[in-house]
Amino acid sequence: MSFKYERIDKNNVVLLVIDHQEGLFQLARDSTPTDFKTNIVAHAELAKVFNLPTILTSSSETGPNGSLTAEVLALHPNAPFIKRNGEVNAWDNPDFQAAVKATGKSQVIIGGITTDVCTTFLALSLRDAGYSVFANSDASGTFDVKTASDANDRMRAAGVQVLSLFAIASELMRDWRNTPGAPQLMPYFDKYVPEYGMLARAHDAAMKKGAVPSGLPSM
Amino acid sequence: MSFKYERIDKNNVVLLVIDHQEGLFQLARDSTPTDFKTNIVAHAELAKVFNLPTILTSSSETGPNGSLTAEVLALHPNAPFIKRNGEVNAWDNPDFQAAVKATGKSQVIIGGITTDVCTTFLALSLRDAGYSVFANSDASGTFDVKTASDANDRMRAAGVQVLSLFAIASELMRDWRNTPGAPQLMPYFDKYVPEYGMLARAHDAAMKKGAVPSGLPSM
Amino acid sequence: MSFKYERIDKNNVVLLVIDHQEGLFQLARDSTPTDFKTNIVAHAELAKVFNLPTILTSSSETGPNGSLTAEVLALHPNAPFIKRNGEVNAWDNPDFQAAVKATGKSQVIIGGITTDVCTTFLALSLRDAGYSVFANSDASGTFDVKTASDANDRMRAAGVQVLSLFAIASELMRDWRNTPGAPQLMPYFDKYVPEYGMLARAHDAAMKKGAVPSGLPSM
Amino acid sequence: MSFKYERIDKNNVVLLVIDHQEGLFQLARDSTPTDFKTNIVAHAELAKVFNLPTILTSSSETGPNGSLTAEVLALHPNAPFIKRNGEVNAWDNPDFQAAVKATGKSQVIIGGITTDVCTTFLALSLRDAGYSVFANSDASGTFDVKTASDANDRMRAAGVQVLSLFAIASELMRDWRNTPGAPQLMPYFDKYVPEYGMLARAHDAAMKKGAVPSGLPSM
Amino acid sequence: MSFKYERIDKNNVVLLVIDHQEGLFQLARDSTPTDFKTNIVAHAELAKVFNLPTILTSSSETGPNGSLTAEVLALHPNAPFIKRNGEVNAWDNPDFQAAVKATGKSQVIIGGITTDVCTTFLALSLRDAGYSVFANSDASGTFDVKTASDANDRMRAAGVQVLSLFAIASELMRDWRNTPGAPQLMPYFDKYVPEYGMLARAHDAAMKKGAVPSGLPSM
Amino acid sequence: MSFKYERIDKNNVVLLVIDHQEGLFQLARDSTPTDFKTNIVAHAELAKVFNLPTILTSSSETGPNGSLTAEVLALHPNAPFIKRNGEVNAWDNPDFQAAVKATGKSQVIIGGITTDVCTTFLALSLRDAGYSVFANSDASGTFDVKTASDANDRMRAAGVQVLSLFAIASELMRDWRNTPGAPQLMPYFDKYVPEYGMLARAHDAAMKKGAVPSGLPSM
Amino acid sequence: MSFKYERIDKNNVVLLVIDHQEGLFQLARDSTPTDFKTNIVAHAELAKVFNLPTILTSSSETGPNGSLTAEVLALHPNAPFIKRNGEVNAWDNPDFQAAVKATGKSQVIIGGITTDVCTTFLALSLRDAGYSVFANSDASGTFDVKTASDANDRMRAAGVQVLSLFAIASELMRDWRNTPGAPQLMPYFDKYVPEYGMLARAHDAAMKKGAVPSGLPSM
Amino acid sequence: MSFKYERIDKNNVVLLVIDHQEGLFQLARDSTPTDFKTNIVAHAELAKVFNLPTILTSSSETGPNGSLTAEVLALHPNAPFIKRNGEVNAWDNPDFQAAVKATGKSQVIIGGITTDVCTTFLALSLRDAGYSVFANSDASGTFDVKTASDANDRMRAAGVQVLSLFAIASELMRDWRNTPGAPQLMPYFDKYVPEYGMLARAHDAAMKKGAVPSGLPSM
Repeated sequence: MSFKYERIDKNNVVLLVIDHQEGLFQLARDSTPTDFKTNIVAHAELAKVFNLPTILTSSSETGPNGSLTAEVLALHPNAPFIKRNGEVNAWDNPDFQAAVKATGKSQVIIGGITTDVCTTFLALSLRDAGYSVFANSDASGTFDVKTASDANDRMRAAGVQVLSLFAIASELMRDWRNTPGAPQLMPYFDKYVPEYGMLARAHDAAMKKGAVPSGLPSM
Repeated sequence: MSFKYERIDKNNVVLLVIDHQEGLFQLARDSTPTDFKTNIVAHAELAKVFNLPTILTSSSETGPNGSLTAEVLALHPNAPFIKRNGEVNAWDNPDFQAAVKATGKSQVIIGGITTDVCTTFLALSLRDAGYSVFANSDASGTFDVKTASDANDRMRAAGVQVLSLFAIASELMRDWRNTPGAPQLMPYFDKYVPEYGMLARAHDAAMKKGAVPSGLPSM
Repeated sequence: MSFKYERIDKNNVVLLVIDHQEGLFQLARDSTPTDFKTNIVAHAELAKVFNLPTILTSSSETGPNGSLTAEVLALHPNAPFIKRNGEVNAWDNPDFQAAVKATGKSQVIIGGITTDVCTTFLALSLRDAGYSVFANSDASGTFDVKTASDANDRMRAAGVQVLSLFAIASELMRDWRNTPGAPQLMPYFDKYVPEYGMLARAHDAAMKKGAVPSGLPSM
Repeated sequence: MSFKYERIDKNNVVLLVIDHQEGLFQLARDSTPTDFKTNIVAHAELAKVFNLPTILTSSSETGPNGSLTAEVLALHPNAPFIKRNGEVNAWDNPDFQAAVKATGKSQVIIGGITTDVCTTFLALSLRDAGYSVFANSDASGTFDVKTASDANDRMRAAGVQVLSLFAIASELMRDWRNTPGAPQLMPYFDKYVPEYGMLARAHDAAMKKGAVPSGLPSM
Repeated sequence: MSFKYERIDKNNVVLLVIDHQEGLFQLARDSTPTDFKTNIVAHAELAKVFNLPTILTSSSETGPNGSLTAEVLALHPNAPFIKRNGEVNAWDNPDFQAAVKATGKSQVIIGGITTDVCTTFLALSLRDAGYSVFANSDASGTFDVKTASDANDRMRAAGVQVLSLFAIASELMRDWRNTPGAPQLMPYFDKYVPEYGMLARAHDAAMKKGAVPSGLPSM
Repeated sequence: MSFKYERIDKNNVVLLVIDHQEGLFQLARDSTPTDFKTNIVAHAELAKVFNLPTILTSSSETGPNGSLTAEVLALHPNAPFIKRNGEVNAWDNPDFQAAVKATGKSQVIIGGITTDVCTTFLALSLRDAGYSVFANSDASGTFDVKTASDANDRMRAAGVQVLSLFAIASELMRDWRNTPGAPQLMPYFDKYVPEYGMLARAHDAAMKKGAVPSGLPSM
Repeated sequence: MSFKYERIDKNNVVLLVIDHQEGLFQLARDSTPTDFKTNIVAHAELAKVFNLPTILTSSSETGPNGSLTAEVLALHPNAPFIKRNGEVNAWDNPDFQAAVKATGKSQVIIGGITTDVCTTFLALSLRDAGYSVFANSDASGTFDVKTASDANDRMRAAGVQVLSLFAIASELMRDWRNTPGAPQLMPYFDKYVPEYGMLARAHDAAMKKGAVPSGLPSM
Repeated sequence: MSFKYERIDKNNVVLLVIDHQEGLFQLARDSTPTDFKTNIVAHAELAKVFNLPTILTSSSETGPNGSLTAEVLALHPNAPFIKRNGEVNAWDNPDFQAAVKATGKSQVIIGGITTDVCTTFLALSLRDAGYSVFANSDASGTFDVKTASDANDRMRAAGVQVLSLFAIASELMRDWRNTPGAPQLMPYFDKYVPEYGMLARAHDAAMKKGAVPSGLPSM
């Protein structure tokens, strides 16, 4: 079996924000609320760090689904924002489809609520339309872990790559010496991947004058 | 790798109720009893909401497996109901096979007890016979989570789509403005997906006279 | 160490419904939404089965906390219902305190949202005021399992009995031959404890004409 | 995608017992010890119920791996038993390979310790040699759940069917009216799947004179 | 704080079997069915190994609760067996109370279905009556782990000792050289605690002629 | 058993920040890193919301334990900050002890890393010295869930109250109409308890012009 | 409620190694095997670090229980080692009791296999005899998490302190500047608490020439 | 579907150590720290046991990621060690690529931190370049179990074999009588798979003079 590795290419990819709405947020119970809110914002900010074209969409937002998350809107005040009035699958909305096509990109990064409906339906339509799809598994949420896992398996069967926020960011960066590289990504990870941020903070502190050794014999 | 997305089509699908029996209910221990009973009824009612042809079947119901769940029978008093006297796989029963074929549909939604036996065996036979099969993972139950997961993987390897009740309902509806749409589905979700129903109730309450703001600064 | 067993006494107990509100419902993530909604209604209906005095209360219900669950209100249209405008601990509300005292009971059954705040605060105040408190652990919900467990431990340290819905119902009934007894409780369990209801259904079916033996050798 | 469903055929299948040894038993920590021991015996007895050719093998049994489980030996005193002195993969042992080939069967049911080594290695070799392989997931054990899951995925990628003991027994039986059918399988399930056995016992008891109804209104 | 350690005394203890019935078995979902059935039988057999007085009781056994487990009855054909017709708490039944008192023992070992109702209610009454109560946590079952844990905490607050089957057996034996001791307990553990039985089997096998060393350097 | 309920009193309580250091952060693996970092900051900000006296301490911060979390320092630039050079238990440091005593408060809220060492040791010393101690269970972290649970049990045995951040904030506030009340706490919960914040956001949005009903029939 | 905090005092404590035997090791399934073996050795080495009197005991070690763990024996070649020939509870062995008394200490640190039998029985006897008992929860193992938790609760009810290895080591040390202090404990933690060891290693590396900053802006 | 089983061949495989660094260690939270550190060393030592060519690489090791684990370096002082200054995917580093190619092997064993980034990216590039890739799932670590599982699925979709350390060692050895065989592997397993090592130790002890039988009747 031969395999061709197609990497995410920061020059050929569009980031989609799918129904990250303040009402629908309550349906996402497969991670902690704080983790999920953090990952919703991290998903949106990824596009800022790498200057990726970004498209926002919401579903029936004057109803119980609620407004798109305020922090996401604040990050992307000028992005195309398609407010769907009824279509569950964003690809069924001609304006959304046009917005994606207008970017001219062939790769798509997605995240949304719920994983099994809005995210999966769109992902399958995008695959059908020939796009390479990368699903940010940290930025999609749904009713429970089993539903998320089944939805991810359904997407994988269609050729979707399901991967973590950290993997997407790293595959976009490729080299810490690139721009964006360490000076952009480290603050980003400090905000959204605190175990890495704290590692960096402690490292920088240990380099400061006044640091004392741990007591371990030198190795 | 190219991919063709075949959606569930409310005009081309039959819903099957497989051995949702009151004795067999005790074998389903991969979800909570209340969740599972609720999903059994939700599975049956899905066909009412979308007016789908429905076929019921049970296995040896005068023995320990017990009667088909009373609530399901009450919803479908006139549906074809094939009481198998011995066949584990419903497809081995000519009356059942005839009933499915008589619908003229090429897509099938299934749910049953147990996931690894009655549901999976039938799903594999249906795939062998050329049907597109959508397994309602919330409406099948079995001994434990591992058995469910292995059975779902076996079905997936045969091309079965395993998805949530919420995903099936949403893929059938497609647009909240269709009929059936919001006025039919919202009460359905209120009954069977209470986190969504409660969201809608709170939304409607907030629209009423007398509601007061939360105390958050406006965003 | 000696021990005095004080049982719940159906003639000396009042049932309290604490902030089972349709907005607050979203904060309860330590059980499945369907289980929790079912248990909220089961808690309220317990008072109907045993004809217990019942007091309802809610917190700031014109704000995000939302209305008391509609099904609960429908069960108790004439119960004292104290809508608190600000007090987190219902005992701080003089009307609520008066309503409890007016029942003349010395035992209290409670359930509420969230377990660690509205339920625990009230439980501790009731213990301080000399009441025997029985917390329905199935009918209280909070952010996660750890928080529920810590809250229950805090209540236990104050002498609160934390027990299941099934245990409360059984301790109230005491004997299946009492009234209420089997004819009242079996339908109640059929609705709210389906593993028991299904057992009863299968038993009754096996008693019907036409039942056939399982194939087991007789024991 | 088309799919051909190959069922387990009781006339074309051999059952293999792979290193179910009393020392190696300690390495299996992905289920409870009682569950696993029960499933080891159930795996061996399956061949008795369906009169399947059976081949036993063990690895270095005079060393720490220990003897083949006594209960298994007692069930199959006359089965071919290949004691390997060093080969990890039983297929590397010419006597074992010859024994399998001598059965003339093209389907194989396997279970062993550990899932990721003795079971998987043999399963992959059998697939390479053209056999249809059915892995009894209840009768294989290994270090932890993750290792079991990875091993099962490795087998599935090679076309192995991973399924439960209950599914294997049911697919072998096909119809409760066959021989073997209910009179053979019900006692088997009573021993090894007690939730089903207890269901049958309670059913049979309810059919006896003296049974009284549950108190549920008739449905 | 001073502490007095009261050990289980094989000459001063009675073993109670509480509602281990074949219908109620389905309500016990806090362990695997095979583990639980095994522990029910192990509980009953403990009395045989140590020749303890034993009292059986069941609740409404002609109804859905079903017969006392057949294997238990077979072990204790002559034990006092009080079939309660309605009392949930066995202590409320005068015959049961008389049977316990007739033993003249001051310590009690209990196990039953469900943990939170039949087991806990009786345990609390026994504590109230001055008995020392030892709850076999492996031999009681209930709806889920949370309910079991809350029930055990309720019993502990009343001074009940909650401990494992292995601990009860070991505290009864005290010394492997006593009678009963190793020759009685090892076969018992081999049946009910297979990780220990397999250890003993492998040990005995290694002592046999023909055993070969593992390959480890001698330590 | 009588019980006296001592509530947290915003006028009589000091908040302690114990070793929330950027190196030690890596030892806290009993919650997600994002949840834990969020709760560390929430703990510190609680003192700002209620204007509580606050004392900071760290352990050997020029070594691997690292600096106190930057966000905490930024919130409390002028709080007493005792940098311990070796004492594990902060109470062993005379400056720390003096700082606590100087507040004149008899209640203490604590949170720290690790739960079982720095937090528990100090909590036990504070109890020994007569303080009422409230442990913020969300703001303490340690190696794993078992260690946290054992540490919390050790503290509870000494009379420490272990409760959630939400419970502490609510017990401090007491009434939404107080100051601080809803206008201060709602933004606080929006930041640190996003399931509640999102509920409030959706509520406020539903009150805006243009909101449309959900489709549920009015109840 | 007043509370007296008794700390572990390195000058008044004896460390006991209870049945950490190479056969019994297989019964300990409530942690990973590598974690448990590591903690067994760490328990024994704690006595070396703090120069604590140490007593070893084993149960029937020529039978299946096996030899005391080789690494433990290598650490304590000259410690009193009481090989019990039958007593389950080490306190029942006069030599063991004499050895403990001969130390003249009033505090005891214990760890053993299994938690619910050998460890708990001895702990309760020690409490009965007036000792202060500190149970190293990381160094005791048993059949499953539930059994461990019940056993720990039984010990806690007798006044035993159950705490982590890290807490015991830290309470013994008290101050990083003591002897033993950082230079002894850091290498100890590096071996047995690798998340702390790795923190120290990275800290020391960051202090070396050639380290480069992380890319975070300075805080 | 036909299948070709390609086994790991000790003469045709190179082992890669990917970013097993002392800072990055903190990001690996999907297993216990002790298990993971043990598996990192076990991975490296595997190459010593089988004399496999080994290549080490690290990422930005003068920054927060830290030095390669000291124990790994000590095992492979003379292996090619490529310190990458920025490339996330080691395959992007020409020196690393040259080192792999210079071995002339077509099979690769990998393990690294994090699973989803450094390990997966390299694995996919190696597959793209035509290598057969075997991922040691025990020797890769990442943020949480879900991320590990998604990463493993991504690798499997590219044809990577994901398997346990025990499976890799066993597939390399093939026969206990080979060299390396039992005398090399048993000590290796004793160090890194203690449940197997303890089994061997107990076996060897039982063969010694003085061993006594367990008390089981001979079988």
